[in-house]
Amino acid sequence: MAAPGRLTTTPDGRLAGLGVHGGRLLDRLAALAAVGDTGDGGNCRLACTDDDAGGRELVVGWMHELGLDVRIDRVGNVVGVRDGTEAGAAVMTGSHIDTVRTGGRYDGTLGVLAGLEVLRTLDDAGIRTRRPLAVAFFSNEEGARFPPDMLGSLAYAGGITLEEADAAVGIDGSTFGAELARIGWAGEVPVPGPAPHAFVELHIEQGPVLEEAGVAIGVVTGVQGISWRELTLTGESNHAGTTPLRLRHDAGLVGAQVAVAVRRIATVLGGARSQGKGPPNSSMVGTVGSLRLHPDLVNVVAATATMTVDLRNTDDDVLAEAERLVAAEVEALAAAEGVTARWRPLARFAPVTFDPDVVALVEATARALGSTTMRLPSGAGHDAQMLARVCPAGMVFVPSRAGISHNPAEHTDPDQLVAGADVLLHVLVGLAGIAAAPLVGAGA
Amino acid sequence: MAAPGRLTTTPDGRLAGLGVHGGRLLDRLAALAAVGDTGDGGNCRLACTDDDAGGRELVVGWMHELGLDVRIDRVGNVVGVRDGTEAGAAVMTGSHIDTVRTGGRYDGTLGVLAGLEVLRTLDDAGIRTRRPLAVAFFSNEEGARFPPDMLGSLAYAGGITLEEADAAVGIDGSTFGAELARIGWAGEVPVPGPAPHAFVELHIEQGPVLEEAGVAIGVVTGVQGISWRELTLTGESNHAGTTPLRLRHDAGLVGAQVAVAVRRIATVLGGARSQGKGPPNSSMVGTVGSLRLHPDLVNVVAATATMTVDLRNTDDDVLAEAERLVAAEVEALAAAEGVTARWRPLARFAPVTFDPDVVALVEATARALGSTTMRLPSGAGHDAQMLARVCPAGMVFVPSRAGISHNPAEHTDPDQLVAGADVLLHVLVGLAGIAAAPLVGAGA
Repeated sequence: MAAPGRLTTTPDGRLAGLGVHGGRLLDRLAALAAVGDTGDGGNCRLACTDDDAGGRELVVGWMHELGLDVRIDRVGNVVGVRDGTEAGAAVMTGSHIDTVRTGGRYDGTLGVLAGLEVLRTLDDAGIRTRRPLAVAFFSNEEGARFPPDMLGSLAYAGGITLEEADAAVGIDGSTFGAELARIGWAGEVPVPGPAPHAFVELHIEQGPVLEEAGVAIGVVTGVQGISWRELTLTGESNHAGTTPLRLRHDAGLVGAQVAVAVRRIATVLGGARSQGKGPPNSSMVGTVGSLRLHPDLVNVVAATATMTVDLRNTDDDVLAEAERLVAAEVEALAAAEGVTARWRPLARFAPVTFDPDVVALVEATARALGSTTMRLPSGAGHDAQMLARVCPAGMVFVPSRAGISHNPAEHTDPDQLVAGADVLLHVLVGLAGIAAAPLVGAGA
Repeated sequence: MAAPGRLTTTPDGRLAGLGVHGGRLLDRLAALAAVGDTGDGGNCRLACTDDDAGGRELVVGWMHELGLDVRIDRVGNVVGVRDGTEAGAAVMTGSHIDTVRTGGRYDGTLGVLAGLEVLRTLDDAGIRTRRPLAVAFFSNEEGARFPPDMLGSLAYAGGITLEEADAAVGIDGSTFGAELARIGWAGEVPVPGPAPHAFVELHIEQGPVLEEAGVAIGVVTGVQGISWRELTLTGESNHAGTTPLRLRHDAGLVGAQVAVAVRRIATVLGGARSQGKGPPNSSMVGTVGSLRLHPDLVNVVAATATMTVDLRNTDDDVLAEAERLVAAEVEALAAAEGVTARWRPLARFAPVTFDPDVVALVEATARALGSTTMRLPSGAGHDAQMLARVCPAGMVFVPSRAGISHNPAEHTDPDQLVAGADVLLHVLVGLAGIAAAPLVGAGA
């Protein structure tokens, strides 16, 4: 693993001052955004649709222009490899090009096209690396058409079999395998794929933290663990005028109390972490996004409340503690009102901690390039968390305006996109190692 | 106005020990319940339907059997009058025979048929009163087909014109006037009707208070004022994973906080009243029965919350104070979360306080008959509150099993129904005054 600080002392100094060609990167982002353009600034390239295929053709064409060895696996993951001067596992970057139905222009695509721009920049500068470099895009990262999300990278990392992936049922009743074959992108390379030497993904933050802090580069420390549960509270429907408060079994009231408790518990646990009891920026979040009452009438005490509780933390112990605290609170609140509570688990993903050396390298590289940095966890899932199962992995974030994503209004300023690509360039070279000058000269 | 305590010292002692014929009352309740029987123990006689007409024919037939002077007014209210020994305004009782779509057997019908049973009992005993006695049933009390509710008694009391009543639009698009004419029950007597000397209504409680207290007779002190408002909270939709708590504008959280605050404010104000700062049993209630989030997804912070706030109190000052406290709390909670709040008034009815002498008479009468009593306000609306606009009025409640009403499971034990009718008997005679023995003898 390359040590931080190495980049400014490259063997021949050729990396000092090197940067990607920003205009070229932005042009390619625009060209890809034209495929599945929704006309409102947004993109729709749901996995395994014709527009997904159109995007794939465009990107693979650019891979061939770069002379990459393009490998398409059985679940449609595409990996373009640039040889190093030594054999062995590649240093890989990449992300995805599928989108949600109302997607933006940068979610996923930035990581893929910045990776290709890095290779083009190295070509232009006549720089070869010791280890091979690879740029990948993984199938069905969004999961917006075929749950689960991150399906392609999960299969690449061996977390799901080909058969399981193919059998994933879409929201339209189709299956992933059949639809991938239909668009002609089921390749021959088996899954799981070869473990990279390391994996680094550039992505937009999709949250407001960097913008709010005025920081250019987010050094991603890991991906939050997720706990999704559904809570059904059952009380008694009663007349809102004739039933005294003390005789009520108001499921809606308990639902509201639980929602307030979720915020309070998340705030307390998040506050404890930020006061030095855990890693910095290990933010706890808790959300009640869905709450439905029945019969939901102005003059009737609610008989039932059905709600979701979304808890996330990068530390599995803290996440489990949040789950315990919420469950205890629900039990007490329900008992006080004479309401019964029933939990149903919806999803539970353990947190992912990125490789400390990769995290440190991203941070040192960004600072060496003059960028302001901030360590933060990712609240959303990414392909890098699947690759983290098989190799040292990390991520680079650039700011999202107002934190908006999965929305045509998704935006990152051009100079911020380019700054992220520059960090990716130097991190990849740092991980792959620059070849001795004679070899570089021979390759240029 | 008759003073409490008078009943046990009637001129000739003939009232002591007098009671209604319970079996006869229960038979008539069952006979009326057979019209619009829903087969599950419930009744459907929505206003101005053929089943409403069927119920009317049955009850008016019983009025004719009693030799009453039956008067049908322009909005279909029916008043059967039994002469007194003196001229002047009648002491009136009654209620309604229309039901909600899933109505029970006793809501309204008890008050009408107990009134008729009182007259039959007096006939049997050869007792005449000084003032005339009248039994009424008012049109469209439920408002379940034609809002507003209590339309007939409101028109009788002059609170709405004939034209306004006729123009009331039903949930099926029909109008009240046309449908009343269609079933043949638009009479000739003008509205508003003559002010009674006093009005007393026997009704099931429709709440759980009497049952819970183990009390036989509820002495109704008034009808709660009602404040219905809709609150729309507008925040910002955000990713539940990537948006730190401190950067959120979570409309759902504020909605939940408001629901909790409504319960707390109602509890505090209700508690203050029960600690001697107001009339006893002037219970404050507050309910958030409807709460809807948007987009209502597990992993998205809610952008909007739309909810209702139902506040009720018998004291208009306390009700207004509750409205102020809730509004102030909403303002503070919304500001703290960076959410905007918009109120829309839905309904506001001032409380009705029943005549203190009538209330005292109901209480003294029930006690003299050996019943346990409890003063309480009505949380639901009743015809008596409209009559209270034009004459001294009051109500007698009997217990509702588990507080259930507007439901086929609505139930009151037979002996409780009869006990209520006995109280009504003695209260009516107390208000009308018993005629001197010679005149009574002449009439028997």
